Amino acid sequence: MAHRAELIAVGSEILLGNIANTDAQMLSERLAELGINVLYHTVVGDNPQRLREALELARTRVDIIITTGGLGPTYDDLTKQTICDTFGRKNVLHPELEQWLRDLFAARKRTMTANNLQQAYLPEKCTIFHNHNGTAPGCAFCEDGVHVLMLPGPPRECALMFKTGAAPYLRSLSEGVIASHTLRIYGKGESDMESMLRDKIVKMTNPTVAPYAKSDECMLRVTAKAATAEEAEAMLKPAVAEVMEVVGEWVYGIDVDNLESVCVSLLKERGKTLTAAESCTGGLLAKRITDVPGASAVFLGGIVSYTNGIKSKVLNVPQSILDEYGAVSEPVAVAMAEGARALTGADYALSVTGVAGPDSDDRGNPVGLVYIGFASEEGTVCRKCEFGKRSRDHIRAQAANTAFDMLRRKLSTLS
Amino acid sequence: MAHRAELIAVGSEILLGNIANTDAQMLSERLAELGINVLYHTVVGDNPQRLREALELARTRVDIIITTGGLGPTYDDLTKQTICDTFGRKNVLHPELEQWLRDLFAARKRTMTANNLQQAYLPEKCTIFHNHNGTAPGCAFCEDGVHVLMLPGPPRECALMFKTGAAPYLRSLSEGVIASHTLRIYGKGESDMESMLRDKIVKMTNPTVAPYAKSDECMLRVTAKAATAEEAEAMLKPAVAEVMEVVGEWVYGIDVDNLESVCVSLLKERGKTLTAAESCTGGLLAKRITDVPGASAVFLGGIVSYTNGIKSKVLNVPQSILDEYGAVSEPVAVAMAEGARALTGADYALSVTGVAGPDSDDRGNPVGLVYIGFASEEGTVCRKCEFGKRSRDHIRAQAANTAFDMLRRKLSTLS
Repeated sequence: MAHRAELIAVGSEILLGNIANTDAQMLSERLAELGINVLYHTVVGDNPQRLREALELARTRVDIIITTGGLGPTYDDLTKQTICDTFGRKNVLHPELEQWLRDLFAARKRTMTANNLQQAYLPEKCTIFHNHNGTAPGCAFCEDGVHVLMLPGPPRECALMFKTGAAPYLRSLSEGVIASHTLRIYGKGESDMESMLRDKIVKMTNPTVAPYAKSDECMLRVTAKAATAEEAEAMLKPAVAEVMEVVGEWVYGIDVDNLESVCVSLLKERGKTLTAAESCTGGLLAKRITDVPGASAVFLGGIVSYTNGIKSKVLNVPQSILDEYGAVSEPVAVAMAEGARALTGADYALSVTGVAGPDSDDRGNPVGLVYIGFASEEGTVCRKCEFGKRSRDHIRAQAANTAFDMLRRKLSTLS
Repeated sequence: MAHRAELIAVGSEILLGNIANTDAQMLSERLAELGINVLYHTVVGDNPQRLREALELARTRVDIIITTGGLGPTYDDLTKQTICDTFGRKNVLHPELEQWLRDLFAARKRTMTANNLQQAYLPEKCTIFHNHNGTAPGCAFCEDGVHVLMLPGPPRECALMFKTGAAPYLRSLSEGVIASHTLRIYGKGESDMESMLRDKIVKMTNPTVAPYAKSDECMLRVTAKAATAEEAEAMLKPAVAEVMEVVGEWVYGIDVDNLESVCVSLLKERGKTLTAAESCTGGLLAKRITDVPGASAVFLGGIVSYTNGIKSKVLNVPQSILDEYGAVSEPVAVAMAEGARALTGADYALSVTGVAGPDSDDRGNPVGLVYIGFASEEGTVCRKCEFGKRSRDHIRAQAANTAFDMLRRKLSTLS
């Protein structure tokens, strides 16, 4: 039988809404890859009594408990002691951890305060997980058939410790795998997908197919359970093909990170370069393209022409066009794209000019109106988008997505 | 006694790690403002049995249950029926909701599929929460002294429905308020804060002070409980002053959104303008500054000079300097800042050039090495930063934070 896991995050800062429980997302994704079913996420505050109750409940309903948070040196970090109390283990000083901490502080030329020494305490007879991104070690032990793993809360520490410590520990427990492929869709919503695929969703049991919305786009996940990764993959292949027959037109990639990484890959494949001229997106296109490692091979750079002065001075948008049509207009979007392409010598230029809000512009253009230009050697096209009176973030994100999708569709047609 | 709440998110996509439970963060923050203590976050999958068990447990330990997700029209959305079963209510068609849905689809010129009609079903005798951002209404009812509220999962829908529907419902139940002020810190960590403030943290009970880490920075939250907002504020004022005496040097703002919004405010106050010349941050500075509504009054625009060609052609960085020192160097950072300032006519220019990784550059500069330039009429300064072999995102974020903090400190010294 597949293992069943519960993630318990410990931290009043999560219950107060100061931070999101992003560790739970990361861990869930990794555990699915290991074939472990995550049945519950639980968050409790820095409260030993409620943490203990959560642990007592968890041990009755899952066989893997993973806690995040509460391992640090500060006053409210109580996870270790509470877990030791609940599972009847002593919290003991591990001399090798003390030495490691002392060396670490010495190397960093920092004073090791008394509270830092608490981090060398862990339950007796546990598997230690070293922390390569911080000072709080984690660990695992098994009691009455229940595996308890403790990981630190800060996301970078948690992610790396999972990879180097917890994943190897868990891999040795797992039988079977869950594998999946994710079809990324832009331009159609979750409800549309569900309607188009309803009979398949109901009919398929293994593999399964499920749609879900993800901020500004939608995804379809096809998932198979099997004894081995190879078997799962063999089951997935025809299932993905079956789904693609229905919705392939809107799928911009399978198992890809996002639209911009697809664009960078396609630009590399085709040997093309890109620039961007941005007004309302204010650098978002450039930022997202350069989020992708290796973008420098295809992205030459861009101009954030947030004011008309920069549009005319740097991008050579004629002042007469700015005066006649206003900055938020098709002629300006076209001139921005062409100006950026001429300035940088890139093969393609994307431009964005619009009203991201919260207020309409001085010409009365409504929030959400955005013009997107795309210049290539074949000429320049422009798309008018009306994203509606939505949040600034949403409008800017949708403008960038639409621009990337225009580029992707163009690149996809090239041989 | 203060109300105690549990948030139950319903969605296998959260347990699979496809999305983070950001609704829980948003709701926790809003509930704290209403004086409601959030004791638990729980996430269960699209599984009626486990949802029912979670509801049965919640009703024994809190008096406010708020569910998110599972109200939509798709096949796996089962929240409403399960809640009705658990609390012994009928799930009935609300004719006014059916009419509203039919009008909505007609106005959007879309066909209303049969599954959409499910959204007009809600428990009998409930308070309806209208959805101004989507098609799934929410609701609230009270059974045996426990208030059950259902909100939709998509964050935009959830946030707006909380504001317009759930908050007024809850406000009528609350006695007393929790108020807090958040001190935002850049350049010192959570552990440093805790050491500096340890005696106050232990001593203070109401108000309390607590440090916490937030991705690339750290915060101190001072919180008071009182009968009214005015009383809480009167308690907070001296407590904040007491904390500021110790750590004020590192506080860049109180109750502010982030470094960039502080920069935009200070630029407006001082009547100054800004530009940016970015290499490794690739538009992140511009993007973050223009995330702030009204940034166009102070941010003229920027140049993403991702390649040496753009550095020399657009920013006039002398080719000889690029050849001699390489793109990642103090002379180039200085020339980029001065070039951007000259090109745009801005009062201040920030520049960033460095190695964001994952690989070191062609001159062997290590990942994490970043030079940040700052040009003003008084001349140009440059800071060399070594952020270490960390993730690309982290290095870029820290480079932007350091640049903004340099600008903020400069602006703070002006009268």
